[in-house]
Amino acid sequence: MHKSRLSTVVIDCQTHQLDEAACFWAGALGLRAHAPPEPDNANYRELEVRPEDVKVLVQSVSHSSRVHLDIEANDLEAEVVRLEALGARRMEYVKRWWVMEAPTGQRFCVVSPQRPDFEDKANVW
Amino acid sequence: MHKSRLSTVVIDCQTHQLDEAACFWAGALGLRAHAPPEPDNANYRELEVRPEDVKVLVQSVSHSSRVHLDIEANDLEAEVVRLEALGARRMEYVKRWWVMEAPTGQRFCVVSPQRPDFEDKANVW
Repeated sequence: MHKSRLSTVVIDCQTHQLDEAACFWAGALGLRAHAPPEPDNANYRELEVRPEDVKVLVQSVSHSSRVHLDIEANDLEAEVVRLEALGARRMEYVKRWWVMEAPTGQRFCVVSPQRPDFEDKANVW
Repeated sequence: MHKSRLSTVVIDCQTHQLDEAACFWAGALGLRAHAPPEPDNANYRELEVRPEDVKVLVQSVSHSSRVHLDIEANDLEAEVVRLEALGARRMEYVKRWWVMEAPTGQRFCVVSPQRPDFEDKANVW
């Protein structure tokens, strides 16, 4: 038994100007941008939402700009195997998460639990 | 004065097999898929979330698969002008919404209010 659910909308921006990118998206969506506290997350800005909401991150990336989804799970391997059974493919393990590709072509990531109500609200498999 | 906020995550799938695509994403995210009631929305399936949550749609498209964001606004023209001032460009008016391009390169749409608590919770500009 493990749990998972949609955790995050990640706005990937092909730019070295992360604060400018975060400023645009914060303004567009009417949310405040914050630098995350973890020092190895320098490529991210978090847009402030309610704790129970899907998180919104702005990330600077080297590939083309896009938007991708993260799924949070308390057992990454079990979740990746579950998603493979649905038709997704595992692409690459990066730092602490799996990059996968949906059968419909979008990349998405499987990450550890991100939102405070994960334990109570995530789907149980 | 007008209002706007993030309304929807749209999972654009380059496929004619919309129900298969919706089935994958519903399974991946642990949400139920529904056909929307409006007959001119045959290209969409809606994934069931709480009324206060950001909506999640799966859409069949002819362009490459991607994920895009919708911003809901009660005055489309005022919202598009606001977003242009932040650096976005208007690309095309389609049916009832504006397709725009962020300065960071992603396409997104400005749509009419979608979520039931829009009036109370949207940002006021």
